[in-house]
Amino acid sequence: MPGGTFDDAFRAELEDLIKWRRDVRRFRPDPVDPALVEKLLKLADHAPSVGLSQPWRFVSVAGKAERDAVIASFERCNRKALDGYDGENASLYATLKLEGLKESPVQFAVFCDETTEKGKGLGSQTMPETLRYSVVTAVQTFWLAARAWGLGVGWVSILEPETVKEALSIPASWSLVAYLCVGYPQEEHIDPELERAGWEKRR
Amino acid sequence: MPGGTFDDAFRAELEDLIKWRRDVRRFRPDPVDPALVEKLLKLADHAPSVGLSQPWRFVSVAGKAERDAVIASFERCNRKALDGYDGENASLYATLKLEGLKESPVQFAVFCDETTEKGKGLGSQTMPETLRYSVVTAVQTFWLAARAWGLGVGWVSILEPETVKEALSIPASWSLVAYLCVGYPQEEHIDPELERAGWEKRR
Repeated sequence: MPGGTFDDAFRAELEDLIKWRRDVRRFRPDPVDPALVEKLLKLADHAPSVGLSQPWRFVSVAGKAERDAVIASFERCNRKALDGYDGENASLYATLKLEGLKESPVQFAVFCDETTEKGKGLGSQTMPETLRYSVVTAVQTFWLAARAWGLGVGWVSILEPETVKEALSIPASWSLVAYLCVGYPQEEHIDPELERAGWEKRR
Repeated sequence: MPGGTFDDAFRAELEDLIKWRRDVRRFRPDPVDPALVEKLLKLADHAPSVGLSQPWRFVSVAGKAERDAVIASFERCNRKALDGYDGENASLYATLKLEGLKESPVQFAVFCDETTEKGKGLGSQTMPETLRYSVVTAVQTFWLAARAWGLGVGWVSILEPETVKEALSIPASWSLVAYLCVGYPQEEHIDPELERAGWEKRR
């Protein structure tokens, strides 16, 4: 189609993409072509941002020491979360696989540069949190694009931001928004709704 | 393509969609089919959310009194923001059209229900802000889908959250994440990068 217009066939596939995007926790160890990752990051740069500030900072986490620090942080937080549930909920929670930190070949800690000069503060003075929200639109753009290229993404939110920042020597003015595991998923799901609804249905 | 796989033709169009998505501030007054809006909101429901909490609440803002309260809030905040710039930056800021609050036929205030039971707190105990971030993924999903159907969306961030909540009688436990203007854009841009870079290039 000419630039900027989209037909029904594309719309139907876009609906599919949105519905098939999943939070992936089971990854195959197969490497991911760095050029593909680079391409997806460039697409994420087209996400909306308040005042065109583009405050997202995708930091690759590849070293063993850094990954071990992230895994240890997850394990601490997850034990604490488990302690917050009782009885059947606790047993169920313990069975859930919530992240692919050990398996996923590509990982990013995604930060918001809270002091970026870009955009000169346009639009973010009344609700400064929109700077961090801009980072989230980049994450969701990356996520959808990754899925279109057959890659799975999982967002790990059970982490101590300060520990992650320290492990990666991140400037004080950046805040952790997301931690992403990326790789080829072990399996596709026939029913895109199946796993999503698991924890809810088992209540 | 079979469910969940996407070919190069689709990927190329998805790239186009991501690049052509714009923050629209100039709308045609033409009405938008409510069935289309409903369809886009349903697609946004497939956005990722921490613990499948789906905490997004899209509240339609259609009444004159409500819209007037939002416009007044924008005008107050925008004057304040203008006062924060000096010299040439102030003159430039004053010329920018930052929102389509008066023209866009469809408007939503988008909230995060901070106390939703859905998801039972799964995954959001260490970084509770991920609940609000989930709302942002729904906004970006809505935005991309809207663009595929020819609709423009503009995110207004120069607003007082408490004023918007009061005008719409919103529960105390919901927080304002985004305010969206939706409608058919007055014009498409030949170069998707042109307007995005305006404020930056004129510094």
